[in-house]
Parts: sequence; structure tokens; C-alpha cells
Amino acid sequence: MAGTVERKLSELGVSLPTPATPVANYIPFVRVGALLFVSGQICLDASGKPVAKGKLGAGVSPDEGQKAARACAINVLAQVKAAVGDLDRVTRVVRLGGFINSDPAFLEGPKVMNGASDLMVAVFGDKGRHARTTVGVAVLPGDAAVEVDGIFEIA
Amino acid sequence: MAGTVERKLSELGVSLPTPATPVANYIPFVRVGALLFVSGQICLDASGKPVAKGKLGAGVSPDEGQKAARACAINVLAQVKAAVGDLDRVTRVVRLGGFINSDPAFLEGPKVMNGASDLMVAVFGDKGRHARTTVGVAVLPGDAAVEVDGIFEIA
Amino acid sequence: MAGTVERKLSELGVSLPTPATPVANYIPFVRVGALLFVSGQICLDASGKPVAKGKLGAGVSPDEGQKAARACAINVLAQVKAAVGDLDRVTRVVRLGGFINSDPAFLEGPKVMNGASDLMVAVFGDKGRHARTTVGVAVLPGDAAVEVDGIFEIA
Repeated sequence: MAGTVERKLSELGVSLPTPATPVANYIPFVRVGALLFVSGQICLDASGKPVAKGKLGAGVSPDEGQKAARACAINVLAQVKAAVGDLDRVTRVVRLGGFINSDPAFLEGPKVMNGASDLMVAVFGDKGRHARTTVGVAVLPGDAAVEVDGIFEIA
Repeated sequence: MAGTVERKLSELGVSLPTPATPVANYIPFVRVGALLFVSGQICLDASGKPVAKGKLGAGVSPDEGQKAARACAINVLAQVKAAVGDLDRVTRVVRLGGFINSDPAFLEGPKVMNGASDLMVAVFGDKGRHARTTVGVAVLPGDAAVEVDGIFEIA
Repeated sequence: MAGTVERKLSELGVSLPTPATPVANYIPFVRVGALLFVSGQICLDASGKPVAKGKLGAGVSPDEGQKAARACAINVLAQVKAAVGDLDRVTRVVRLGGFINSDPAFLEGPKVMNGASDLMVAVFGDKGRHARTTVGVAVLPGDAAVEVDGIFEIA
């Protein structure tokens, strides 16, 4: 039986992908005490293809960027579920880090990152309101348009 | 009655601004246990205008950047005060993240970021000494010259 | 007598340098509870010279970048040792942040960052598996090719 949070995801038409397992000596999450640290997730869709590739302000539109940030957030949630089994065990989305693959003249990073923030609140309600840092970076792995990492509090 | 830390701010001629509230689904801070996570703050002055706009190494001087980093730190402290009521409850400035809006050839990010670090120690004394990571990013929200986020330990 | 982790470092031919002390109001590490936050370390070798300077994708090769990331990881470990005395007290490498000084077209950041991740696992075994976020930044302090920061769990 799906918990409250996963029913909410379902209502939003979001199915969590099988989370990506890095082919490397790092892993997708580490829990220490009540804190779960989730590795940076790029904007791959459920089939593993990038939702948007390239730079905001140079080929990728803010709207596409927002969808990319939402895809990152979905991948972050897939890792949280893999870590704790049931998303209802999340007592707080603590912090999201938003990295926007940006042309040096692109100023709308926060708008792009709202694609991730909005999903957290749509899914978790007030527990989904988080601290956030958004910056425009020179480039991201595989030329992904957006990368998001997270810290969660777990019951 | 102002506490010790706020008297120190006063002596330094710093008045904390009314902290910015994001118009979005993220919030300026989240506390979990003894840790307070503060969202990235850009270099706005008390009237909400950027202290410095543009890139270090391409229009913004290191001295202007240092003032911008100090303004970010003031905004971070305004959020800490909003979160815990009295800055004397801070037992440690744990970590600052410094993001410098940089021309790819600008190498003096740490010098710029000292504008934030120096304020923390001026205000908190030894409790203000913090871990820090400074990087030069491609661009920042609204073309702010500097963005700073923080983690604080609260009694 | 060296502990298990330091014997492992020795076997790998790694001797920890005297850790760099910042000439500033920030410090190399702060511990709060079980968490140790280590400041961003650039890719200096034991003599204090950069292992690689400049940008990946514009002068620095992925192989050189990987060596630079390894050097950063060694410097992070030197700080952990300075903080806790014995690396055997590390119960978990929680998270590494990897900042790659990148040409905007360089897509292989994760490969570069493996130089740091691989060392952690070589030294700590399964306790060395960590969460990780890797991004390509515009520039780094002193034009270092790589900067790495970390969070460790301490017994």
C-alpha cells in the first residue's frame, strides 16, 4: 500500500523511476543520524534520457529548464525512497542545492529552480518547504541543463 | 534589550535589514536539531538594491566584491535572527558557502569572500570561525556579484 | 602507532601533508556533534604547489584532473586527521562536493571527481562510500583545476 506522499505523487502523474546507481565509488545517498544526504541528480527522465541538455540562456529556455529541475527533483525523491522505503518517513525537506547550467548572461536561475521546489511542496505540503541555494554553473555532467542535490530529515 | 552579538553589530554600524522572504516554495531557513540551514543570500543592501552587480574580473573590483560578500553575510545574519530571535543563541558559525560571480580568469575569490568571513568573526569572535568553500560561478540570480549561504549551530 | 586507515594510506604511497592553514578568518574544519565539516581544499601537492592549474577542457586533461581531485582528497584527509587525531575515528565519509574548473564545453566532471572518490574507498573501504555532487565551475581560487570539500561522521 502506497503512503500519503506516494499517493500524492500518483495524483500528480509522477511515477518514481528506478533510481540511477552511479558506476563509481560514490553512492546516491548517505544517512547520518536524522539527516539523509542525497547526491546531485541530473535531469534524466524515467527512461534515462536528459529532459534538457545544454545551457540556460543559450539554447535551453526557462520553461524547459523548469521542467528539467522538476525531473531532478523526481530523481532525488526516487533516491530518498530507495534509502528509507517510504516517503512518509520524511519529516522535512531540509535543503536543496540547485545548479543551473548557465550562459554567463542568464539571470533567471531561481525561476528555473522553482521547478524542483514546487514539486517538493506539491508532494510534501508544508514539510516540503526547504532552504535553497541556486547558482549558475559553467557546465554540468553530460551537459545536463540542471542538477539538484538534497538534505532530508528522516523520522 | 539587544544581546551581546547585536550590540557588536551596532558598534560596527551594521543594522540588520528586514530579511527577504522568497516569493516561492522555498524558505530562508530550516532548522533540524542543532543545525540551522540558511538559504543562499545575494548581496542586496538594506533597501533591497544590489551592492554590486556583474562579474568579478569583468567590471566588479575585488574591493567592491568584498563589500558585496559582507552584504550577503549581513543578510544571512538577518535570517538567523528571524529564525532564532536572538543572535546570542548561535553557538557556532559552522560553514559558509561562497559563490563568486566570476569572469573565468578571476582568481581572487577567497579575498572577496573574506568580506563575509571577517564580519562573522568581528561579530561572534571565536565562535564566528567557520569552515568555508569558495568557488567562482558562471552567474548568479539577478546578476548579483556574490551569494553566500550558511550553516549555524544553535543552542 | 599508525591506525588501520593510515597504514592503508602508507601502502598506497600517500603521506598526508602538513595541512594548509588559511590566512583568514575561516578555518579548515568545524565539528558539530558527530559531523565534521571540512573547508574546500584545492589541488596542492605536499610542497604546496598546484598539481594542475587551469581548466578542464582547455589545457588540463581528464587524467591530470583526476590526479588533481586525488590531491584535493589527500588534503581533505590531512584536515580530518588534524581535526580528530586518528583517521580510524571516521565512521563514514558522508559527502564530498566536487568543483571542477571547467571550460563551458567540458562534460566529464564526474570522471575527474572519481580521483577523489576512489581514494576514499581505497583508504576507508565501505565506510568511504559517500554521497557526492560534482559541478563544473567558472574558475577556482588560484586557478586550481579542482576543489573538494567534505562532510565526515566521527565516532
